[in-house]
Amino acid sequence: MFESAELGHKTTKEDYEAAEPALRAALLEAQYDLLDLREFAVVVLINGIDGAGKGETVNLLNEWMDPRHIQTWAFDDPTGDEAERPFMWRFWRALPAKGKIGVLFNNWYTEPIRGRVDRSAKRAEFEQQVDAIRRFEAMLVREGVLLVKFWFHLSKAGQKKRLKELEKDERTRWRVTERDWRFFEKYERYRDVAAYALRQTSTGDAPWTIVDGSDPRYRALFVGRSLLDALQRRLAVCGSKWAPRQTEAPLPVQVDRLTLLNSLTLRQPVERKHYEDELERWQGRLALLTRSEAFRQRALILVFEGADAAGKGGAIRRVTAALDARQYRIVPIAAPTEEERAQPYLWRFWRHLPRQGKVLVFDRSWYGRVLVERVEGYCAEADWMRAYAEINDFEDQLVAAGAVVVKFWLAISKDEQLTRFKAREAEPHKRFKITEEDWRNRDKWDHYAQAVCDMVDRTSTEIAPWTLVEADNKYFARLKVLRTVCAALSAALEPGRERGRA
Amino acid sequence: MFESAELGHKTTKEDYEAAEPALRAALLEAQYDLLDLREFAVVVLINGIDGAGKGETVNLLNEWMDPRHIQTWAFDDPTGDEAERPFMWRFWRALPAKGKIGVLFNNWYTEPIRGRVDRSAKRAEFEQQVDAIRRFEAMLVREGVLLVKFWFHLSKAGQKKRLKELEKDERTRWRVTERDWRFFEKYERYRDVAAYALRQTSTGDAPWTIVDGSDPRYRALFVGRSLLDALQRRLAVCGSKWAPRQTEAPLPVQVDRLTLLNSLTLRQPVERKHYEDELERWQGRLALLTRSEAFRQRALILVFEGADAAGKGGAIRRVTAALDARQYRIVPIAAPTEEERAQPYLWRFWRHLPRQGKVLVFDRSWYGRVLVERVEGYCAEADWMRAYAEINDFEDQLVAAGAVVVKFWLAISKDEQLTRFKAREAEPHKRFKITEEDWRNRDKWDHYAQAVCDMVDRTSTEIAPWTLVEADNKYFARLKVLRTVCAALSAALEPGRERGRA
Repeated sequence: MFESAELGHKTTKEDYEAAEPALRAALLEAQYDLLDLREFAVVVLINGIDGAGKGETVNLLNEWMDPRHIQTWAFDDPTGDEAERPFMWRFWRALPAKGKIGVLFNNWYTEPIRGRVDRSAKRAEFEQQVDAIRRFEAMLVREGVLLVKFWFHLSKAGQKKRLKELEKDERTRWRVTERDWRFFEKYERYRDVAAYALRQTSTGDAPWTIVDGSDPRYRALFVGRSLLDALQRRLAVCGSKWAPRQTEAPLPVQVDRLTLLNSLTLRQPVERKHYEDELERWQGRLALLTRSEAFRQRALILVFEGADAAGKGGAIRRVTAALDARQYRIVPIAAPTEEERAQPYLWRFWRHLPRQGKVLVFDRSWYGRVLVERVEGYCAEADWMRAYAEINDFEDQLVAAGAVVVKFWLAISKDEQLTRFKAREAEPHKRFKITEEDWRNRDKWDHYAQAVCDMVDRTSTEIAPWTLVEADNKYFARLKVLRTVCAALSAALEPGRERGRA
Repeated sequence: MFESAELGHKTTKEDYEAAEPALRAALLEAQYDLLDLREFAVVVLINGIDGAGKGETVNLLNEWMDPRHIQTWAFDDPTGDEAERPFMWRFWRALPAKGKIGVLFNNWYTEPIRGRVDRSAKRAEFEQQVDAIRRFEAMLVREGVLLVKFWFHLSKAGQKKRLKELEKDERTRWRVTERDWRFFEKYERYRDVAAYALRQTSTGDAPWTIVDGSDPRYRALFVGRSLLDALQRRLAVCGSKWAPRQTEAPLPVQVDRLTLLNSLTLRQPVERKHYEDELERWQGRLALLTRSEAFRQRALILVFEGADAAGKGGAIRRVTAALDARQYRIVPIAAPTEEERAQPYLWRFWRHLPRQGKVLVFDRSWYGRVLVERVEGYCAEADWMRAYAEINDFEDQLVAAGAVVVKFWLAISKDEQLTRFKAREAEPHKRFKITEEDWRNRDKWDHYAQAVCDMVDRTSTEIAPWTLVEADNKYFARLKVLRTVCAALSAALEPGRERGRA
């Protein structure tokens, strides 16, 4: 969920000053178009970790755009007047009219999340509140509201640093309250509770945008561009003077080139001897875990995704080598059969679900929906956008039924892939592994990379996290896969241990 | 929820034999069109009260249509094989392919409802299960599945009668199990739990159809026609050889002329003396209730709907006469202002919500969305169809905040309305009350009647039920309104009493 927001994005003063004027002008123009058009209202939700720059950013938005047409609301604990009415009453009153922008700070997410963090609300109650929010937002969207949701994130170290800075300066000391520190003490819990709420409410119509709040210049440009992108895309599909744009995949809103993938060091040296020792060690561990008494009431579902020639097959073989042949099955996912195309896209995966005590390995998976189908345009944007939430629901059911779900993205560099392609062509018995299509896919490398980052940010959940595997060195990749599987299994099989749910 | 299904619909042998062949032929034709087209699958859910004829009806469907292309699944308690997989697994396996019809008996609703009835599931858990179902069904619909949901209903007396009949006949005795009788003992609870599930999952895309299960011929024709209607409507909007039909309000699927409204005896005699005594009595009671200590933590929200000249104003005055002027407000709802049109349709009602200890009277209300806006075509079918669920959510929040919500439909006959119109025109000081529009609305009388019946069936909930008021006699109408308000208030203000939630 927060992976991309912890990469430590930074924007230099020069870059900021170079980019800011154009962004400002574009935002102002979009705001006036919105106003002329009066066809829809814009609701901007500002939530997230204290100290991540929510306030500064909102002030900036008011500075960049025409504040006469932006209503900013900061909600504190409900006053008597508000407390005597339904929970949502004060938020309804804050809704902007068509043509206007409403910025809602500490909105309908704040109380439910706080209530769950300090345990005044049971988990089931909290999940109901989150669900009521999803229904409410769905209604807003169907009523024509453009809903833009920002979550400002900081790593734990980042938040501590930030709060201390604020306290040092007596002009800002007042901003750090007792409550801020109390919540900091519960950072992990707060993050997990928030992650759940974000995952459940990140729908195709109103997805969350996670903001790396650590660098003021970066977050300002990122939020500004994200808002601008949302405005322009919506204005573009409004009838009247704007010509409907093709529904194309959304242009990634990028401020810098730093992404989940390119921040990895793909080649990790491992000596052969070390590899062989470790391989034996972890395969032994996996053999024990999957033969344990406790595992008979569970199941293990492994998902392998990665570029062509990333080494999925090799990694899978190193895992299955540790398993009893009667215990596991490998499901290679290719284009759907005619039978499968006649069903909802998740059907072909449901049909393979294992019984208890079994291991199921997907060589490519349901994530094809948000990878190949998105990039190749096999399904509409609305379809792959809603797929993130549907996939999370799907994995939620797997975990609820006792399965341990481990997902791997094997990451290789474009050069390494080329080397492996050439090697394959050279070896007769491997030549079948390389096709025209593989070469074509290389042309779309950047589009796939973007799809992978979005996929990890939207579907790496507390119950089924993604593991990015640096795979230019096959030894390293295989060991990391085995270690991760063993860690996930032992965590799950340790009795009495909560499976990571807030 | 079950109002229309308890009217005791009946179909004579003659009517049945006259109608059945055409229905049969049309169903078969639609089935083959579906098969040729292969553009979508049809999932028919069969749920409801035991003994209400679910089995017989499904057998009939198989007899009427080509059973080779209907897959019927009856789910019992999960077998070992099924129990070891996620809850939804066995239902996914039962999904029909495009072009096919799947009839699912005791499906994903059965276990959650039973679990809640026998209290093995907490309310919050149950509500989460229901919500997971809604998300799952939304996904099916977006994947192109035509989802037709039937709930077979019987009144308590009706179910008892039915179970006894089955037991008497030794050919059917085996069908009545211990569990059936155990559930019969909990009839009210079962009905309330089911009502909640149906309300929460009756969405615009996949609404429930409640079947009066008491008469075999009636329910057969009703289910057959409802299914046919759904099939034809969907086939009509499929590209290929079918010309897209205008999105018009759905033709009511009627087997007989019996409806909620025309089953009322609209003129109820009341003597003037009796009226005056009772009026004084109930106004006194209301005065006490609204001045009670307990009411200071609550609020009272009254909704008055009814045809023109049904006597809403007069009834409202008789209520407010009992109240302290500082305590109540009357909100007359006319066409929305420009300010209100710039907001989601519920916004203008939220803005009026009262503080605690107050009484708010809506003279017409948010139900305009599913009445005038539906009938006059001011909003699309998709919009008023989704409004039922949105309105239920809205009222859910009112009640959760402590408000008592009482909703009245004042029902008068078309003749009585004419008489009153003429009287108004005769009296100079009342002439302003009657406009051209009022006369025009009379032409759409039947459309409004249908909209009212749908409204009551879809929004008369355990937390905010509708009261139909026979209003040809104003005395009777006013007394019934006052009595109902007092009853609702005293039920709510009696400490420790659950507000009707399952």
